[in-house]
Amino acid sequence: MVTPIDPTSTAFLLAENRSMPMHVGGLQLFRKPEGAGDDYVREMFEAMRDVDEVAPLFLKHPHRSARTAGQLVWKPDEQFDIEHHVRHSALPGPGRVRELLELCSRLHSTRLAWERPLWEASVIEGLADGRVAMYTKTHHALVDGVSAMRLLASVLSTDPDKRGMPAPWGTVPDRSKVAKERERAERRLEEVPVQALRSALGITAEAAGLPGALVRTLNKSVRGETSAVSLHAPRTMFNQSITGSRRFAAQDWPVERLRTIGKATGTTINDVVIAMCSGALRTYLLEHDALPEQSLVAMVPVGLKAQQSHVASTEGGNAVGSIMVQMGTERADPADRLDAVHRSMVDGKRALSSMTPVQILAMSALGQAPAILTPLLRMQGLVRPPYNVIISNVPGPRTTHYWNGAQLLGTYPLSIPINGMALNITCTSYDGLMCFGLTGCRRTVPHLQRMLGHLDDELSALEKAAGV
Amino acid sequence: MVTPIDPTSTAFLLAENRSMPMHVGGLQLFRKPEGAGDDYVREMFEAMRDVDEVAPLFLKHPHRSARTAGQLVWKPDEQFDIEHHVRHSALPGPGRVRELLELCSRLHSTRLAWERPLWEASVIEGLADGRVAMYTKTHHALVDGVSAMRLLASVLSTDPDKRGMPAPWGTVPDRSKVAKERERAERRLEEVPVQALRSALGITAEAAGLPGALVRTLNKSVRGETSAVSLHAPRTMFNQSITGSRRFAAQDWPVERLRTIGKATGTTINDVVIAMCSGALRTYLLEHDALPEQSLVAMVPVGLKAQQSHVASTEGGNAVGSIMVQMGTERADPADRLDAVHRSMVDGKRALSSMTPVQILAMSALGQAPAILTPLLRMQGLVRPPYNVIISNVPGPRTTHYWNGAQLLGTYPLSIPINGMALNITCTSYDGLMCFGLTGCRRTVPHLQRMLGHLDDELSALEKAAGV
Repeated sequence: MVTPIDPTSTAFLLAENRSMPMHVGGLQLFRKPEGAGDDYVREMFEAMRDVDEVAPLFLKHPHRSARTAGQLVWKPDEQFDIEHHVRHSALPGPGRVRELLELCSRLHSTRLAWERPLWEASVIEGLADGRVAMYTKTHHALVDGVSAMRLLASVLSTDPDKRGMPAPWGTVPDRSKVAKERERAERRLEEVPVQALRSALGITAEAAGLPGALVRTLNKSVRGETSAVSLHAPRTMFNQSITGSRRFAAQDWPVERLRTIGKATGTTINDVVIAMCSGALRTYLLEHDALPEQSLVAMVPVGLKAQQSHVASTEGGNAVGSIMVQMGTERADPADRLDAVHRSMVDGKRALSSMTPVQILAMSALGQAPAILTPLLRMQGLVRPPYNVIISNVPGPRTTHYWNGAQLLGTYPLSIPINGMALNITCTSYDGLMCFGLTGCRRTVPHLQRMLGHLDDELSALEKAAGV
Repeated sequence: MVTPIDPTSTAFLLAENRSMPMHVGGLQLFRKPEGAGDDYVREMFEAMRDVDEVAPLFLKHPHRSARTAGQLVWKPDEQFDIEHHVRHSALPGPGRVRELLELCSRLHSTRLAWERPLWEASVIEGLADGRVAMYTKTHHALVDGVSAMRLLASVLSTDPDKRGMPAPWGTVPDRSKVAKERERAERRLEEVPVQALRSALGITAEAAGLPGALVRTLNKSVRGETSAVSLHAPRTMFNQSITGSRRFAAQDWPVERLRTIGKATGTTINDVVIAMCSGALRTYLLEHDALPEQSLVAMVPVGLKAQQSHVASTEGGNAVGSIMVQMGTERADPADRLDAVHRSMVDGKRALSSMTPVQILAMSALGQAPAILTPLLRMQGLVRPPYNVIISNVPGPRTTHYWNGAQLLGTYPLSIPINGMALNITCTSYDGLMCFGLTGCRRTVPHLQRMLGHLDDELSALEKAAGV
């Protein structure tokens, strides 16, 4: 039995090409439980593979045929082969984080085949310090970053002694609740006036080959908007066409350090995250002799309350608006940059809160579908990029979690660089850590890993500037 | 500077899609030299990566733009990044051949990106017995199986004490000679009458979107042909559409065992190879309750002498004709099957030797481009597959060879399953071993690895039947 694919997911599927795979990834690090034997990683892999039942989300694949009138639909994979999806991998010596990031970069560079359900997971052994890693890859048509995070959290436990826990793709009792919530969200979507929906989904309609009238509607509602919308940012080395191969870099810092800076300066943790990125990008661009005089603009997705957005969904949806943040990269002083970021965020939030549902829907589409929007904007004669870099911050569990006794030590998101937006920075907070995941086009963003050092330097500089 | 791509290579590029990657692979097993340290594999990887200079073949990528009038051309990769191409990988525990074949299957399942030169190599550690593996992947537009084998051999030495040897993609003094030979072969190609060329290349012309007239010419020259050409074979489970993921199985047997059978029965080593495949396929199909009453037909590429073919090339070319061999899979007796294979091969060779250059060119195209031919034949109303399986036997070095002191123990080819031809069997002889590489669509050919046991059983059965 086939089921329809919602327009946003369709857009993500259609926007995909060989140099722009449309999957999100996650890297998790675990500490083996006490008394784990030599075969622990293999056992963990087998437990992940040998699930009783796989959740429907992980069993369907996109399908298009004459019978579906050329339309993309979800179809259950009748020859589902779990061994294709759940893999056991290993790192070469010396088994440092460097080898792990290199493997994740490679795994993240290959596209998911549409002929099978759109996900893969690799249980990875060989870290010299004995930790176990897991890399997961899921098409953006199935989940976004928030949903992926919730999905993972839904199979973890705060109880280190709990056993018999399913893999994230195994079915769990809670799932039905999740499905109901999603259904509810979709119903809400139906209740939104047709005209409003059309505006928001014009982007996806265009991607599907429909005429440009709807897109013009969208642009109209976006244009003339407040400072939340910037359609002008300076050109940078990140705003080029990309290739299909990726480089991934990841590191974490204690949330407490960010919170302390925030308290001392009257800013939020998220402001400090963006300021860290601002300083790191400034240093990186200076190193490449490529810092523009004008401030870089970051697109920062922000969660919208369900009542406000009319399209919220708790799972599997993409209920976000977005704020265009002036990052202050042209300023030499760290405190100045943090101040610029903070003011821009306050501005943007105010603007967002005053928007009409139609405008928010449009913003939401903008937030969801930059991959699709960017070429459209270019098409319409906007030669400069609407923003330079995407910075997301996805909240995760605040306490220590376990999977069958293995302690989750950190979780790092791998996201989607797109044409014109070669670098993506996504952060996840977990158990007192702010985990940064930087995903870039391997060719367009050289030496991405240096950015980690710059982030660290900037955090110290911000502490010094805040006098903490 | 861009250079033209020859029509055959163009056809391989254009025939490629997500479920049909067009690269050939090789798995090599090495024994570490005496006194190798713990870091040996890393050092080997670094030696492979840090070459002085990369040969031009490995620096060009396909390119198409308005400036090239929409035509595909080779373009040097101006941002060549050796780290993208040469990789260091590892096997998870317990590090058996099983884990190695699983990794090779996965590596062989992903397409090479056109935005970079069309090759990859992975140096693989983690085999429990201490051997080192190397998997290489090269687009068929660059090399065929024979050329890949020669390329590898060209950087090996019979001297275990020789050091400072380059990687296969590094430049070596001999290369210029090879280039000259290729040039000579290409010139010979130019001397062939235009009409003859057109017939042979009609296939590729069609693949490139040109009208069907040329293809009809080809079919005319092929049709009404001798027993070397079979356009009718029974339908089998192998002759279906395929998916993009692969399963690879490999094993070797002493050539001496095959030679002894051949001597006792008046057949060739190659006849015995095909008879082994015949028996193994029969058992496999019986297990799946899918053995057709009519004999399976194997397409067996055979080398043509340069004088005869007019299109021979020693490196980088595809100078082969092909024989359609009645495998005798419907016969229950191993000796009967060997006899059927032998007679079919004798027939085919005789036919091939009596063909005109035009016909041989056509055959050569048939041998080169089954991927392109198969859909064409279907298009023209031939509902049955022209053959069921491709079996190649590529001769390799006969003596023990080394790479910087590491002894090459065996070399196993990974080939290209195509739509309608889900299984490919390619053999390579090396240092007294006949190395079989079986590459199948992971979905269409389940439990491919069982075929290894069947091959082993059949070899024993043939020995018994031959009374040796």
